[in-house]
Amino acid sequence: MNDDLNDLRRSLDNIDNALLYLIAERFRLTHRVGIYKRDNKLSPVDPQREAQQFKRIQATASRLGLDETVAHNLFRGLIDEVVEQHKKLQAKDS
Amino acid sequence: MNDDLNDLRRSLDNIDNALLYLIAERFRLTHRVGIYKRDNKLSPVDPQREAQQFKRIQATASRLGLDETVAHNLFRGLIDEVVEQHKKLQAKDS
Repeated sequence: MNDDLNDLRRSLDNIDNALLYLIAERFRLTHRVGIYKRDNKLSPVDPQREAQQFKRIQATASRLGLDETVAHNLFRGLIDEVVEQHKKLQAKDS
Repeated sequence: MNDDLNDLRRSLDNIDNALLYLIAERFRLTHRVGIYKRDNKLSPVDPQREAQQFKRIQATASRLGLDETVAHNLFRGLIDEVVEQHKKLQAKDS
C-alpha cells in the first residue's frame, strides 16, 4: 500500500470543505423554506416530511455501506437546528 | 417570489444525497487511516490534528456564514465515530 497518512488527511480536508459548502447551501435553502412556512402559517415541524426524509436517508446510507445510525444522528442534528431557526423566524414575525 | 415548498424540498433532497455520498467516502478514507494507524501503532486520537481540523472548520464556516457551533457539533459527531471505529480496528488486531 502506498497510503501515506498526510496524503489521506489532505483528501479528508478536501471532503470536509465540500461538506461545509453543501451544509452552508442547505441552510440557505432551509432559510427560504422557513420564510415560506412563516408567510403561509405552516408549522416549523412537519412529521410526515421528516419521516420521508429519514426513510430516504436510511435507504441511501444502507446502499452506500454507511452506518445507518451515524447517518441518522447527523441529519437529526441538522434538522433539529433547522426547526429551531424556523421557530425563531416565526417568533420574530409575531 | 416563485419559491414553491416542494421545489425547495427537491433541492434539499438532492443536497442530502450529495452529503451522504461524501460522508460515505469520508468513512472509506478514515477506514484507511485506521488501518495505517493500527499498522504503525499510532493512537486513534490525535489532539494536534483535531485542533487543526476544528480551526479550519471554524474558519471555513465563518467565511460561508454557517453557524460555527452547528459546524463544530456536526464534525464532532463524525470524528467521535471515526475514533470509535479506529479503537475497534485496533482491538480486533490485539
